[in-house]
Amino acid sequence: MKENKITLQLLAELVDGEIVGDGSVEIDNLASLETAGPGDITFLAKASGAEKLSSCKAAAVIVPQAVQETSLPLIQVDDPYLASAVIQNYLLATPFQATGIHPRASIGEQCDFIEKDVSIGPLAVLGNRVRLGKRVTIEPGVVIGDDVVIGDDCCFKANVSIAEGCKIGSRVIIHSGTVIGSDGYGYATDKRGFHVKRPQIGIVVIEDEVEIGANSCVDRATFGETRIKSGVKIDNLVQVAHNVVVGENSLLVSQAGIAGSTTLGRNVVLGGQVAVAGHLQLGDMVMVAGKSGVHSNLKAGEKVGGSMALPIRKWRRIVAASGRLPDMVKELRKLRKDMAKLMEENNE
Amino acid sequence: MKENKITLQLLAELVDGEIVGDGSVEIDNLASLETAGPGDITFLAKASGAEKLSSCKAAAVIVPQAVQETSLPLIQVDDPYLASAVIQNYLLATPFQATGIHPRASIGEQCDFIEKDVSIGPLAVLGNRVRLGKRVTIEPGVVIGDDVVIGDDCCFKANVSIAEGCKIGSRVIIHSGTVIGSDGYGYATDKRGFHVKRPQIGIVVIEDEVEIGANSCVDRATFGETRIKSGVKIDNLVQVAHNVVVGENSLLVSQAGIAGSTTLGRNVVLGGQVAVAGHLQLGDMVMVAGKSGVHSNLKAGEKVGGSMALPIRKWRRIVAASGRLPDMVKELRKLRKDMAKLMEENNE
Amino acid sequence: MKENKITLQLLAELVDGEIVGDGSVEIDNLASLETAGPGDITFLAKASGAEKLSSCKAAAVIVPQAVQETSLPLIQVDDPYLASAVIQNYLLATPFQATGIHPRASIGEQCDFIEKDVSIGPLAVLGNRVRLGKRVTIEPGVVIGDDVVIGDDCCFKANVSIAEGCKIGSRVIIHSGTVIGSDGYGYATDKRGFHVKRPQIGIVVIEDEVEIGANSCVDRATFGETRIKSGVKIDNLVQVAHNVVVGENSLLVSQAGIAGSTTLGRNVVLGGQVAVAGHLQLGDMVMVAGKSGVHSNLKAGEKVGGSMALPIRKWRRIVAASGRLPDMVKELRKLRKDMAKLMEENNE
Repeated sequence: MKENKITLQLLAELVDGEIVGDGSVEIDNLASLETAGPGDITFLAKASGAEKLSSCKAAAVIVPQAVQETSLPLIQVDDPYLASAVIQNYLLATPFQATGIHPRASIGEQCDFIEKDVSIGPLAVLGNRVRLGKRVTIEPGVVIGDDVVIGDDCCFKANVSIAEGCKIGSRVIIHSGTVIGSDGYGYATDKRGFHVKRPQIGIVVIEDEVEIGANSCVDRATFGETRIKSGVKIDNLVQVAHNVVVGENSLLVSQAGIAGSTTLGRNVVLGGQVAVAGHLQLGDMVMVAGKSGVHSNLKAGEKVGGSMALPIRKWRRIVAASGRLPDMVKELRKLRKDMAKLMEENNE
Repeated sequence: MKENKITLQLLAELVDGEIVGDGSVEIDNLASLETAGPGDITFLAKASGAEKLSSCKAAAVIVPQAVQETSLPLIQVDDPYLASAVIQNYLLATPFQATGIHPRASIGEQCDFIEKDVSIGPLAVLGNRVRLGKRVTIEPGVVIGDDVVIGDDCCFKANVSIAEGCKIGSRVIIHSGTVIGSDGYGYATDKRGFHVKRPQIGIVVIEDEVEIGANSCVDRATFGETRIKSGVKIDNLVQVAHNVVVGENSLLVSQAGIAGSTTLGRNVVLGGQVAVAGHLQLGDMVMVAGKSGVHSNLKAGEKVGGSMALPIRKWRRIVAASGRLPDMVKELRKLRKDMAKLMEENNE
Repeated sequence: MKENKITLQLLAELVDGEIVGDGSVEIDNLASLETAGPGDITFLAKASGAEKLSSCKAAAVIVPQAVQETSLPLIQVDDPYLASAVIQNYLLATPFQATGIHPRASIGEQCDFIEKDVSIGPLAVLGNRVRLGKRVTIEPGVVIGDDVVIGDDCCFKANVSIAEGCKIGSRVIIHSGTVIGSDGYGYATDKRGFHVKRPQIGIVVIEDEVEIGANSCVDRATFGETRIKSGVKIDNLVQVAHNVVVGENSLLVSQAGIAGSTTLGRNVVLGGQVAVAGHLQLGDMVMVAGKSGVHSNLKAGEKVGGSMALPIRKWRRIVAASGRLPDMVKELRKLRKDMAKLMEENNE
């Protein structure tokens, strides 16, 4: 990993931060609070951890506005976690170095890309009529089907599979083992209980700036398209079924699954192992707590939880109350007895 | 996708349907209601959506018996969803075109198949003594272990792995990234807490007409076999552990998991993210609601739900009642107070 | 599978067992109770199943101490399941046979291993500066990134991906489709709701004697390392997020997931489909029931269950009580009415 060297002052400008101390110190790397040393910048996510700075060996620290510690040069910002990510990306940025087509890659017919603009590893396979943009990296073992179209600055890690006809935007990262464009799970069942396959003739469209983790699946549409909109980030082992639409900048955490034809608005968050049933509409900014099951439409901004997801405050009250259930059973029994006794007395 | 051209009359005969209107219209494709145009047939799944037909541009429509709309030629059937799948498969059918062995595929020793009957893509790998039937398609990156036996008309998508000794029937489709025949998860733990691997020397048998989605896993048996019976359809990211038997035509929806040595009857349905514990028997036609956990045997025809799965009606009543829990806590408290007061009064 | 031949007496010594009957009988294989025949040893896990021995055709049986049946030669041990695993491994052991580098494998520059000590299959890919120990098996389609270090006696099954810089110990088995070292899921979200990728510059360290099932994922650390300690056994489709530490000999059953920066002690057991939230500490020997969700730290030895995991006895009481919920709703309603009536009477 080759890093750039830059003054603290210029880094502060990059993130609209305020310098406290010496802005001329040179930085060439970002490291964690515990491991940062000379030449490293680090960050403190929350002001409440400021005591950690006393033992910090970094050359400079990105801190929340409230922190004023002065033995180390600081960049004060609103959101140190965000600012540090921006700075780290800047420090790690290296110009794309095309390696061309490895002699042991297999390229189909009538593909459309400029060899000196791409890096295609050994034992990668492109089908026929595949189109690649500039600065695309295709690692070993990746298989790209016929007629796939890919934008600029994409990276497909080892053993990714992209089936025929799918469309991928620019600046898309797909991690190892993930499958794009597998058939949707669609069958019509006859009277004997035998399942007739519904041909899945649609495609998957992945827009710009999407990242998809390892061993996830995005199925092609039955008709039309399954669409992952721009800025969406999908974790590992996530299932996106046929004809799903995932709105801009939504986050799907590991092992979440979305059943067929459901539409998510923008900036939706599904926690880990969430399941969303099919043919639903989830509005913008909906948040679903980890392990929840969503069985009905949700309005923009709703926050829900539970296996039959409810508004999250209600769900939390139910969870709390259910801890009292065994006692409630006993209390009810006692009340019944007392009541019977009282009623008997009153009838006497 | 090359399509066939055929009269509406002949399509109607294919699905035992009744023609309303002109049976001589020629059809070469099936499309969705919204996108169908000239030459296309489409379908209306339920009579309740019949008003959509007025804006439909299709050449003909497959409809339920109850629909009699006449501006478009119709095929009336009992189950339009099923009939449309049969017709679509018919229209899309193309003769298998063998491409033989790609020069960059790797074929082991003593394999047994006729090259002109199969299509083996670049960078696919067959071990030794692999037997293939006719019209088998093996996409790039597929790895098939030693002594695997595969029937006719199978299709293995990119990057599938099939481990040594497994047996696959005919007309089987396996989607990208799926692993057949990985070792079962079996260990014996010694007194120090160290886990001794139990060798997994069984195999996986997959019968005819099975389809398995992307990135799923079917483990080989400890001894004997793990068996997926004919007509079973498995979705993406599903786990089938060692020595499991999945009965004919069962459906395992995405992210479901079945622990070791459990047997499912025929036409069982496991919803998404269901977990079934090990060493259980689930009878024919059992249905398990999505996200449920099954911890006990289930009789044929049972429908269950919940994290400790219960009869689905009981489970629904519990879910409904649990929404009242926070109020019940308050009511109980009030009742206790009232009761105490009454009892005090009665004792005065 | 070539087996060794050995006397029962020597096998008994291997597992500290007592011979009952003829110790000179020769054994060359271990089989299940139902299928064992001449030359086979088998095992009875529990004394309660001793009646099965009468129909058993094996040459000898490994039994619990309590079993004294004498028509077959026996090895009596404390734990027949464990002893049988030790014996089976012994009988199946074959010397490693290096096949060297297949001519169609792709090996990067400056790799460090002895070709005659390893088996690298066709279409496997090693990056640059990869170091391999002795007796390493790399199956077809495996992709190993730059600078990966691997110990002795490891086996990587077809289509495994190991990303750059990761470190793997000795006697590690990784099954097909599993991904080691994919980027952790880390983003900083700006005010527009756009997610800035946090570079993931750490690695994964996998210690000795670890086995990981098929299609699982272990993400690289944001900084530092994600660590799977020695003796850990991970099932299929498991998610281990960035900066997680899994303690020695822990078991992660299929489809379990651990969120970022959580630390598990030694001999922890996570059941199938368990989710553990991020930044938690689970002590040694913690056991989490299948499908549970863990949201708080757990002390050594705790056994928990439920979607908001509770001590398992409490959880079971709650589950039992919740089955009474619909009745409780009715009872409460009746009690309210009775109470109102009584209070009215008392006020009269």
